[in-house]
Amino acid sequence: MVLFRRLLGDVLRERRVGLGLTLREVSAQARVSLGYISEIERGQKEASSELLASLCGALDTPLSEVLRDVSDAVALEEAAAALATPIPVVHAQADVVASAA
Amino acid sequence: MVLFRRLLGDVLRERRVGLGLTLREVSAQARVSLGYISEIERGQKEASSELLASLCGALDTPLSEVLRDVSDAVALEEAAAALATPIPVVHAQADVVASAA
Repeated sequence: MVLFRRLLGDVLRERRVGLGLTLREVSAQARVSLGYISEIERGQKEASSELLASLCGALDTPLSEVLRDVSDAVALEEAAAALATPIPVVHAQADVVASAA
Repeated sequence: MVLFRRLLGDVLRERRVGLGLTLREVSAQARVSLGYISEIERGQKEASSELLASLCGALDTPLSEVLRDVSDAVALEEAAAALATPIPVVHAQADVVASAA
């Protein structure tokens, strides 16, 4: 199952690291505890909508952009999962073959 | 503040109504209480990632598609908010004008 919070955490962490910001800096800016942000980045806690807005503000990134990145990451996982699903093998049924003959 | 849960609720409701499904049908399919789904659609409750995956399954819609629609809706609200923000008026400062003369 593709979980939103895990990929959201990945996107938020990538964005923060890309900006060269520490957890401590984002924590101070967003007024959210460092431990909580860390858990969100690791996909262990759900972020409330208010907290998500706050984090986006601290990362100076529109929420729409974060969600688009998450959507793209989810789409990749969905495609990978679809590829990994074995295609069911259809066996010819002896009776059907017999009746057709 | 643009809240994720409000626009997520809008997207999920539109999708359900577009498919001609009732809350009761989605509730039975997703194994989530009808009242809870209704609150999520109205943006009053946050959906956990597991619940969101379950709802997407019941709506036969990839999570990535739901998130892309939410991202688009959020982008529209962000643009509207940017337009509504008054541009600060810069007043000519008397001393600057005087010193330039």
